[in-house]
Amino acid sequence: MKKRNLYLKVMPVEEALQKYLDVIHKNVAIQKEKIKVIDSLGRKTTSAIYAKYNSPLFNSAAMDGIAVISEKTQMATDFHPLNLQKDLEYVVVDTGDPIREPFDAVIMAEDLIETEGGEVLIREPAHSWQHIRPVGEDIVAHELILTSNHIIRSIDIGVLLSAGITEIEVYKNIRVAIFATGTEIIEPDAEIKEDSIIESNSRMFENLVKEQGGIAVRMGILPDDFALIKNAVEKASKEYDMVIVNAGSSAGTEDFTVHVLKELGEVIVHGVAIKPGKPVILAMIGNVPVIGLPGYPVSAFIGYQNFVRPVIDYMQNNLCSDPQKIDAFITKRLVSSLKHKEYVRVKVGKVDNKMIATPLARGAGAAMSLVRADGFCVIDQNKEGIEIGEKVSVELYRPIEQIEHTVVSIGSHDLILDIIADMMPNMFQDSYLSSSHVGSYAGLMALKRGEAHIAPIHLLNEETGEYNITFIKKFFTDICRPMALIKGVQRVQGIIVPKGNPKNITSIADIKNHRFVNRQKGAGTRILFDYLLNKNKINANEINGYDNERPTHMSVAALVQSGAVDCGIGIQSAAVAMGLDFIPVGVEEYDFAIRKCHLELPHIQSFIAVLKSDEFKNRVQALKGYEFDNIGKIITDF
Amino acid sequence: MKKRNLYLKVMPVEEALQKYLDVIHKNVAIQKEKIKVIDSLGRKTTSAIYAKYNSPLFNSAAMDGIAVISEKTQMATDFHPLNLQKDLEYVVVDTGDPIREPFDAVIMAEDLIETEGGEVLIREPAHSWQHIRPVGEDIVAHELILTSNHIIRSIDIGVLLSAGITEIEVYKNIRVAIFATGTEIIEPDAEIKEDSIIESNSRMFENLVKEQGGIAVRMGILPDDFALIKNAVEKASKEYDMVIVNAGSSAGTEDFTVHVLKELGEVIVHGVAIKPGKPVILAMIGNVPVIGLPGYPVSAFIGYQNFVRPVIDYMQNNLCSDPQKIDAFITKRLVSSLKHKEYVRVKVGKVDNKMIATPLARGAGAAMSLVRADGFCVIDQNKEGIEIGEKVSVELYRPIEQIEHTVVSIGSHDLILDIIADMMPNMFQDSYLSSSHVGSYAGLMALKRGEAHIAPIHLLNEETGEYNITFIKKFFTDICRPMALIKGVQRVQGIIVPKGNPKNITSIADIKNHRFVNRQKGAGTRILFDYLLNKNKINANEINGYDNERPTHMSVAALVQSGAVDCGIGIQSAAVAMGLDFIPVGVEEYDFAIRKCHLELPHIQSFIAVLKSDEFKNRVQALKGYEFDNIGKIITDF
Repeated sequence: MKKRNLYLKVMPVEEALQKYLDVIHKNVAIQKEKIKVIDSLGRKTTSAIYAKYNSPLFNSAAMDGIAVISEKTQMATDFHPLNLQKDLEYVVVDTGDPIREPFDAVIMAEDLIETEGGEVLIREPAHSWQHIRPVGEDIVAHELILTSNHIIRSIDIGVLLSAGITEIEVYKNIRVAIFATGTEIIEPDAEIKEDSIIESNSRMFENLVKEQGGIAVRMGILPDDFALIKNAVEKASKEYDMVIVNAGSSAGTEDFTVHVLKELGEVIVHGVAIKPGKPVILAMIGNVPVIGLPGYPVSAFIGYQNFVRPVIDYMQNNLCSDPQKIDAFITKRLVSSLKHKEYVRVKVGKVDNKMIATPLARGAGAAMSLVRADGFCVIDQNKEGIEIGEKVSVELYRPIEQIEHTVVSIGSHDLILDIIADMMPNMFQDSYLSSSHVGSYAGLMALKRGEAHIAPIHLLNEETGEYNITFIKKFFTDICRPMALIKGVQRVQGIIVPKGNPKNITSIADIKNHRFVNRQKGAGTRILFDYLLNKNKINANEINGYDNERPTHMSVAALVQSGAVDCGIGIQSAAVAMGLDFIPVGVEEYDFAIRKCHLELPHIQSFIAVLKSDEFKNRVQALKGYEFDNIGKIITDF
Repeated sequence: MKKRNLYLKVMPVEEALQKYLDVIHKNVAIQKEKIKVIDSLGRKTTSAIYAKYNSPLFNSAAMDGIAVISEKTQMATDFHPLNLQKDLEYVVVDTGDPIREPFDAVIMAEDLIETEGGEVLIREPAHSWQHIRPVGEDIVAHELILTSNHIIRSIDIGVLLSAGITEIEVYKNIRVAIFATGTEIIEPDAEIKEDSIIESNSRMFENLVKEQGGIAVRMGILPDDFALIKNAVEKASKEYDMVIVNAGSSAGTEDFTVHVLKELGEVIVHGVAIKPGKPVILAMIGNVPVIGLPGYPVSAFIGYQNFVRPVIDYMQNNLCSDPQKIDAFITKRLVSSLKHKEYVRVKVGKVDNKMIATPLARGAGAAMSLVRADGFCVIDQNKEGIEIGEKVSVELYRPIEQIEHTVVSIGSHDLILDIIADMMPNMFQDSYLSSSHVGSYAGLMALKRGEAHIAPIHLLNEETGEYNITFIKKFFTDICRPMALIKGVQRVQGIIVPKGNPKNITSIADIKNHRFVNRQKGAGTRILFDYLLNKNKINANEINGYDNERPTHMSVAALVQSGAVDCGIGIQSAAVAMGLDFIPVGVEEYDFAIRKCHLELPHIQSFIAVLKSDEFKNRVQALKGYEFDNIGKIITDF
């Protein structure tokens, strides 16, 4: 077998960062540069800036009108307007024109009488300095304009230029070289081969660096070749202020980064007690910080935030801005290990004035969980986990105002939820939908615990053939807190098979002989499938893949499409979306359970209005497999 | 006389904007464009974006280890480890490698026994799909990734690329042409002539447009020439999405903009009831919005914020983000007119848990007031003013956290305040100084009203020759709220004269015969001057310019330097800064009055620490005219 790296031990996050920053503080000088004021938006001054010129540069007219000699105007009255002689006793001035001796006052155009012959008469005396802006009225030369460490705004640029300053010294934006490594890695627009992994982390880093004000230079993709990586990283360490090497930082057979960095410089830390994100390398080549980050997207992101961000902030003298933090109640028990600090992505919602945090997928590969998340719940290394309902601190990265106007949906998954989420903020300002997919049963439980506004469900009462209402009645027995049902869509459920149906599956009975993918326990589709097995007198043991569970219709369809299984259970729209064939087994009611008191919430009203809109129906019809009887109707008395 | 424009009437702000936006909504289409995902940071999606590929693209190893056929592992136990045959029964895989048939599970490297002969043994059975990331586990093709109107973040870029999306449609960033006009206007780096005005507004606009995401193109400076302006604006209206013409929008003799726009297109609004900022022109040339803005920097800024900003926001489909608003108590009576809505720049401070807003210079030319301001207090058109102590709403544009950590200083002006303001945030995180210059007397009054933490004063008791303490005792008689004095510097006061002292002024008596500039009533320097006049038996009437008041030492020195006056009264450091000569008349104590209870505030402690620091003394010594006896000493019992 090929040789693998070993982590001798992993270091706690804070200790690792401090150890690295200590080395950086000692070895890396904060750089400054002179730039043009006109290019300085958002940059930070290194020292106080004083005006060079006065503004205005000279005594000048503050109004449109005429400049006069004040002592020669003293005889003017309303009854005896005074006739002034042009050039000798007055000159015409516009606002901003210089006022020169012997003139020492301005009379506004509105206060003049102009005769047809072109003569000018005044009706009252002017006093010395009247309507004149004295030199330096706005800015006096040598006056402080900006303090050091000031971030330049648009108005500052105007004032600096007015004060005669065209160049200023600012902290240098550091140049960061970013390497992607991996033989199997391809560019996003390249042709996809059987084992391809699309390179995307370096683009994420590039933009994270940009957001911090740094200059990111993506160096392209290097194959897993020790010599190539070594040469490229060595060259970059001479030309850039910082280097990021992505992937190859782990303990796989082709993870060369740590060996390269040991040869070129000094590895300060290898392996940090953080999850996801353990295989971080913090190194120096000469005076240049070089950081190796793991390849899984979530690990890469968390590694960046915890180690690259503070280093760049230090090197650019940025203010480290902590994310907004709020307290929220966690909806799921989280077990964590004393071996690491863990970052759990959460969706955050506000239900009945309580902030609720619902954990998302915890895998390091779950990049979509970063996109979907409203924030992180951080579990400290010295904590073994969080109990359900415990109050936790959440680092928020979606505006809290948006969260307060969001309908929280927890329950069964359907593609129509995506369409509603897209339409709500477009049709109504400040209305959003956030949905977590846990299946119908778990959705009702979440609703009961007050963690959601609505639960999308499709639960068949096997005895009556009726959908949903039976279950609401069974789950919610407190008559003081009555429930309602918002009618949704009718969906066609069935068997999803590859295009052309190569195994010729035509009924539930045919599934027995083929590789199958199921939905998770508590999902309405799973319940329907169990009902159908029962009806067909098939035992679950007879199904090859009964325990092979996927959490959404789309992920079931994806597995069928990949060829790894021969069939799965799900809705028609998922089969259509993936270009697969479909054998219908029934039509079901997909509705939304809700507490009656929540119906009046403005964002719930927006939700219902979207359901009833023509645009919604048109978009859903394009998915295939839906009907709209009674859509948006509210049922309250049951 | 040359012809002037006339405003027939000015329109209320809201009405003017609505009228203009109505025309724009009818005539201007919101534009979209396709761009590369890698360039999309901060851009806004026009429609929902769905995944093109699955991620992972194939069933892949979730761990480093070996891929096995699960059913062939079932016999493995701790007591009877199972020997697997390479290639046939297992293959080595690193995380991310594809798992192909017949392999259907992964065993982690850590769980393997590797013999010296290179054989691999396993100790427990693997179950099907173990440590395999199924195709689409993270992202399923056709799944919603981003909704419409989503502003792209770094993590979104990573996920979009992983999902096979390399191009997206976003709202187009509009291209805005910016003209500066005016024959007397020069570029900031040009040689200054006697009547030059440095062009800076267009640079401010350029960066305001950039901050909104637009593409600003500064078209240079045009002289006041009707034909030239007309040709240039016409050409720009064909090539750009929007045009800004700066200055020439007023009613001066050379204000051509409105005539040009009337010939080229339609003027929707000319003149708005806003102060500063009245001479705004809102016009259309074909489908292109053209806005004429006034020349005074503050008017230009307010005109931009009220009219250009909402038009660009509409054209780019930006979210219009309102500034943060807070309630504060106003420290000065503000008289306004029913003729306009007024924007008053204010400094904001927090004293004794009360937010305090202190109005700054109200002139349209006072660009520095924009730099110094913490926000705007807006006086609606239907209000005639605001009484002192009235609660007002302030549009804040400095972070409220900073305001809460700011020492509010109101009182006498000195250059050392700038140095303290610069040093405080550098020496201590989260400590700031904000100072308003109103003179010693007014400073003590503000302190008494609870509007400031400290009042810098230098008040001479003419009878005892003692400084400051007499006045604090006289002003603050409530023994329950004891006062303190933080000792500051000793300053040399004297007569400021031009370099070489051309009028040969050697004493106060000499001032009588020359043009003089004074300080305002209540300023310590004014009181000292009156004392000296009295001592020299000179009557104020005998001083030519006794009523010619300037608010700071530096503005006095600037007027002397301009040649408009022959001498002024002020401190040595101001004369030195402006390269002027100086005749000393005395040394005074410049100290800080403070309520005893405020001494313990952390930012006051920072203030005192700065005063006592060596860096402070070194920087102040370079200004000349200061001594440091007892600096930072606190006197409490008097």
